[in-house]
Amino acid sequence: KNLREYGIEIGVLDTGPMNSITDVRGVQVGHQTLIKEDPIRTGVTAILPHPGNLFQQKVPAAVHIGNGFGKLAGSTQIQELGNLETPIILTNTLSVPTAADALIDYTFTFDDNNNVRSVNPVVGETNDGYLNNIRGRHVSKEDVLKAIRSADSGRVSQGNVGAGTGTIVFGFKGGIGSSSRIIPESRGGYTVGVLTQTNFGGVLQITGVPVGKELGKYYLSDQLNESPDGSCMIIVATDAPLSAHNLERLAKRAMLGLAKTGGISSNGSGDYVIAFSSAESVRIPYHSKNSIQNQPEIRNEGMSPLFMAAIEATEEAIANSLFHAETMTGRDGHTINALPVKRVMEIMKEYGRGEE
Amino acid sequence: KNLREYGIEIGVLDTGPMNSITDVRGVQVGHQTLIKEDPIRTGVTAILPHPGNLFQQKVPAAVHIGNGFGKLAGSTQIQELGNLETPIILTNTLSVPTAADALIDYTFTFDDNNNVRSVNPVVGETNDGYLNNIRGRHVSKEDVLKAIRSADSGRVSQGNVGAGTGTIVFGFKGGIGSSSRIIPESRGGYTVGVLTQTNFGGVLQITGVPVGKELGKYYLSDQLNESPDGSCMIIVATDAPLSAHNLERLAKRAMLGLAKTGGISSNGSGDYVIAFSSAESVRIPYHSKNSIQNQPEIRNEGMSPLFMAAIEATEEAIANSLFHAETMTGRDGHTINALPVKRVMEIMKEYGRGEE
Amino acid sequence: KNLREYGIEIGVLDTGPMNSITDVRGVQVGHQTLIKEDPIRTGVTAILPHPGNLFQQKVPAAVHIGNGFGKLAGSTQIQELGNLETPIILTNTLSVPTAADALIDYTFTFDDNNNVRSVNPVVGETNDGYLNNIRGRHVSKEDVLKAIRSADSGRVSQGNVGAGTGTIVFGFKGGIGSSSRIIPESRGGYTVGVLTQTNFGGVLQITGVPVGKELGKYYLSDQLNESPDGSCMIIVATDAPLSAHNLERLAKRAMLGLAKTGGISSNGSGDYVIAFSSAESVRIPYHSKNSIQNQPEIRNEGMSPLFMAAIEATEEAIANSLFHAETMTGRDGHTINALPVKRVMEIMKEYGRGEE
Amino acid sequence: KNLREYGIEIGVLDTGPMNSITDVRGVQVGHQTLIKEDPIRTGVTAILPHPGNLFQQKVPAAVHIGNGFGKLAGSTQIQELGNLETPIILTNTLSVPTAADALIDYTFTFDDNNNVRSVNPVVGETNDGYLNNIRGRHVSKEDVLKAIRSADSGRVSQGNVGAGTGTIVFGFKGGIGSSSRIIPESRGGYTVGVLTQTNFGGVLQITGVPVGKELGKYYLSDQLNESPDGSCMIIVATDAPLSAHNLERLAKRAMLGLAKTGGISSNGSGDYVIAFSSAESVRIPYHSKNSIQNQPEIRNEGMSPLFMAAIEATEEAIANSLFHAETMTGRDGHTINALPVKRVMEIMKEYGRGEE
Repeated sequence: KNLREYGIEIGVLDTGPMNSITDVRGVQVGHQTLIKEDPIRTGVTAILPHPGNLFQQKVPAAVHIGNGFGKLAGSTQIQELGNLETPIILTNTLSVPTAADALIDYTFTFDDNNNVRSVNPVVGETNDGYLNNIRGRHVSKEDVLKAIRSADSGRVSQGNVGAGTGTIVFGFKGGIGSSSRIIPESRGGYTVGVLTQTNFGGVLQITGVPVGKELGKYYLSDQLNESPDGSCMIIVATDAPLSAHNLERLAKRAMLGLAKTGGISSNGSGDYVIAFSSAESVRIPYHSKNSIQNQPEIRNEGMSPLFMAAIEATEEAIANSLFHAETMTGRDGHTINALPVKRVMEIMKEYGRGEE
Repeated sequence: KNLREYGIEIGVLDTGPMNSITDVRGVQVGHQTLIKEDPIRTGVTAILPHPGNLFQQKVPAAVHIGNGFGKLAGSTQIQELGNLETPIILTNTLSVPTAADALIDYTFTFDDNNNVRSVNPVVGETNDGYLNNIRGRHVSKEDVLKAIRSADSGRVSQGNVGAGTGTIVFGFKGGIGSSSRIIPESRGGYTVGVLTQTNFGGVLQITGVPVGKELGKYYLSDQLNESPDGSCMIIVATDAPLSAHNLERLAKRAMLGLAKTGGISSNGSGDYVIAFSSAESVRIPYHSKNSIQNQPEIRNEGMSPLFMAAIEATEEAIANSLFHAETMTGRDGHTINALPVKRVMEIMKEYGRGEE
Repeated sequence: KNLREYGIEIGVLDTGPMNSITDVRGVQVGHQTLIKEDPIRTGVTAILPHPGNLFQQKVPAAVHIGNGFGKLAGSTQIQELGNLETPIILTNTLSVPTAADALIDYTFTFDDNNNVRSVNPVVGETNDGYLNNIRGRHVSKEDVLKAIRSADSGRVSQGNVGAGTGTIVFGFKGGIGSSSRIIPESRGGYTVGVLTQTNFGGVLQITGVPVGKELGKYYLSDQLNESPDGSCMIIVATDAPLSAHNLERLAKRAMLGLAKTGGISSNGSGDYVIAFSSAESVRIPYHSKNSIQNQPEIRNEGMSPLFMAAIEATEEAIANSLFHAETMTGRDGHTINALPVKRVMEIMKEYGRGEE
Repeated sequence: KNLREYGIEIGVLDTGPMNSITDVRGVQVGHQTLIKEDPIRTGVTAILPHPGNLFQQKVPAAVHIGNGFGKLAGSTQIQELGNLETPIILTNTLSVPTAADALIDYTFTFDDNNNVRSVNPVVGETNDGYLNNIRGRHVSKEDVLKAIRSADSGRVSQGNVGAGTGTIVFGFKGGIGSSSRIIPESRGGYTVGVLTQTNFGGVLQITGVPVGKELGKYYLSDQLNESPDGSCMIIVATDAPLSAHNLERLAKRAMLGLAKTGGISSNGSGDYVIAFSSAESVRIPYHSKNSIQNQPEIRNEGMSPLFMAAIEATEEAIANSLFHAETMTGRDGHTINALPVKRVMEIMKEYGRGEE
């Protein structure tokens, strides 16, 4: 269940209808979950900014690096050209090359791309090596293509699915989480959606309640000897017509949402944010007869409500990943427990939150 | 009073003895407060990394730009060379040139600097133009020099003092705030101290309690029509022997502390962090006979506790600025109220916080 | 005389009619030259992107930092917001604060700006302290305002004028230089204009001819004991409708032009490039009823001809500064000789260049 | 033959004994060249900062992005942590994922790395798709491992070898090129070595002589309809004990060397520089009992001679790639001619260069 189904709200803005990144028109998400002997506890999550041929119809995009201890593929070209030309794939650290290769395959499946000789695959990761035999590199190109093919625009599955299958957050089982926000009609009524792959540490807070401290499980406490390292991938989508320049500013705000969950962006955490606009009016065609493109663009002062939306949706997406994830046992018998939701709800009540 | 004197704690790490940036050995702070007819509601705050001739004994330093809608002087040279050669001055937006000029004067007062022909003055600012007749540019060079001369290593005065005299945060009177943290002895026992000049908006939270929401005063609510813009200057000091590279990473974490107070780094907010190490072992002499300098340096994996310290101290410094500030009336009869501490404490209790 | 008047060409693109930054429609340049007893050998150069109220009609702009050992004021706001709201002032290192203060004065002279309480003055500098008594800070606010008021759209005066009055380049007298390029009509026919304030070192080359080496005067040679430090400010203007994002890319190319003159961007050189578009179609009004602005924008692949234009014009602007500058004696009797043009022309001939 | 063997010198500093990146102590280079039916015209070049286990003994490193239209793997972690933990692999654009995967394999071949679960493979590329059937992705992991295994510290093979097999520069056949410089003993006597994979365009100059213009073959001329796009990878090695911070500054200077060959860093060019220090005194052990590392470090003002060395060696490495490359026919019968060396030498003479 989502956090909200326990009567707990984060922030002041309304969520979209599904409270999911897929509330942003055009966005699709697919997962491929790999839970097998070996033990394999990993997977792939694909985010498609729109369902068409992305190489031919690129979307404005930007990357913000919260802490660069990670292996994100494709970041420099996004930053230079300001656009995204493949789906975004999330997976485990050591499967980034396989996923990147699969994105090239995927791009070549489109007839229109028959003469394409350069592709910028975008792949993010977190390290699930505590539960998963990550050195086995068990994600195949076919797994990646399946994640893409299975993408749809419905509510995103959360918790131990796809790239979140084997992740750990604040010492509990993490995974995929998603949330969305709609800014007031008077400010444009745009939607901002976020998807996170959570695998990091710090001192867990849920809507400000010091859950980690109450449970005695936090970085530098006696009971959390595990490192806070591990990484967080955050994808921010919006239907607001934004330039790469303002998308970069928007991406930066997602880290403020991570901060509100108690994340500290530790030395070993690869915290990256990729933001894109799915608005049709700002698509960038690969070829154009015109050397000039006319583009609508939100003025700078219109960004603040979108910033707030990205912060709130990120905080809630991370919380949702915890509320959906389930206890998992993996490599070398390691077990990571789910967040003890019942106990957490008691704590929430002590701190004046949740349903009566 | 500091937040802690109300029985409210932020974070899990211990504070330094004074809970002030001056807990970091060598650091001194001075204020010059200007409250006069006109109306003038502004001032100057000076932060000295060490009491000596900074030009001759530079300190490693870095700048992180949370949101660059501001006029910070000196940032590019700090980033290029990785060091700081003047005190840091904070003041109002339109007095940055005057303060920069005064720092050149100050540098020239040292006999050892008689042949110096290049100085990189570092001046940060926030905009106090709602209460202060900022267009009058009433800060003089002498005011700046007075702030420097009055600097000492005692507990920092907070609230409506110095550069915080006329600032506004979350719709309430803001100002100067400070806090510090000590990391566990096993991790080095270093101190991180923070000083903030608070003048920004969002949705106020105090140690996670939704104070802004309860008071009905927050960005995009009906009752806070004032913009969330305005800026936050954050100074992070530490006695850990850090290189410029890791100081930049440390500076970045301060924004996560700002996030936890409900700040959204709005479009119009100039949010800058300057971090420096006051450790004597990493001082950078202006002249040296050796072309190679031997420097102790914390290894990357030793940074995480310092990151957490910077986050906690920033959150608490911002809160302290609110708890110390008092109601002020200024330009055109504008009045900004102090945080209603009594009401806030009631809210804190409803949310399970504070003294019994 | 310009280099071209000696029959020497740089690059393959055509120059604009005046071979000056003022070939870019709307751009105006003014100088205030200060040569007096004391000795004072300094000045001010003002570049106006358009003749109107820049605060109300901002222009898209970007900054590239070649080497950040300098005191450029205003860079972070340009980078964050992507625009420029004051004229650009160039002067000496220690007069940056005065010039910044003067730009605030200037902005306040417009009635439309009566309620403006935040201004981002943009001031670049190089250090003329070898010839000029720079510690005297002899540039006044009035000098800055005079430079602005005297700006016109005619051919730019070059050499020992304005901010170039006391500068040194490759061991010879430097100063202000300018040049322009027009890209082919088939690529849009746009103009790129460059103005440089030259004050740096390395191994002088003029259109590839090793002049510095032939004259035995270059960095690390026996005869050039002076440091290569000192800085170069480069202003790039264009009438192409560019976003801040692509202006940043354009700015970066100017450093490639500097490289071709033999500059090495030494440790102590503050090499900054500010690029802006003067195209009316991309002006950014301070206030707008629309939250969305429709903007024409050159597609990424249209940038390469503009890149080449910026490189060529920068190389030639630097050369022009040398050809126009005259021998100067200043502080402590220091004399810096003009480039020995006659001897240089002989060298050029030995290397197959110049008039028959 | 190297350019120097034709009696042509670039710059003023001495070269190392082999005039090769391998003049830097510890550095090894290996190539795997793939020329087969299909047509396959591609390959792999491996650069090893030292011959040991790089993961256990990392080297300080930095990345500079000249123009980010490229697929460099591993850049963000280098920038965040300031170190390199695998050999650097260069190959073609679409084989980056395969090479990255092979670097993980390679890292796992060391027994000491048996518990390693995170590896940051560093792979650069240029696009050889005009001559090579790049869509076929014919580079195998075994090819990459062979390049690594074949690495030695002898003079680097240049021209149509390894990752330079199918590249094009200034419309002529490009490839791998290398050069080195030694700075004066009085400045430390350090060596800087450069290796380039050349595949870009502009207006070719050789030590300042306008060869491209004389041959009528340059960007925006009638006869060079091919795009200037394509990319340049530049690897800069030094035995000077540099921090990541100053290595980043050093990397930036390599682009100035590229500029001097006439490169314009066109929109479609992925121009990246990776710099590292092979000095044993600055190695970064993976594990350490000490949380503090004592490191010798060149002071900032000692960087200028190294900057000049990087510029000169880059310019010469690019020239060498042209002088070594041979005419090649590939995909769809495309033929790219070698630089017409005899004709070029005539031009050089007209411009006062080369042997009598």
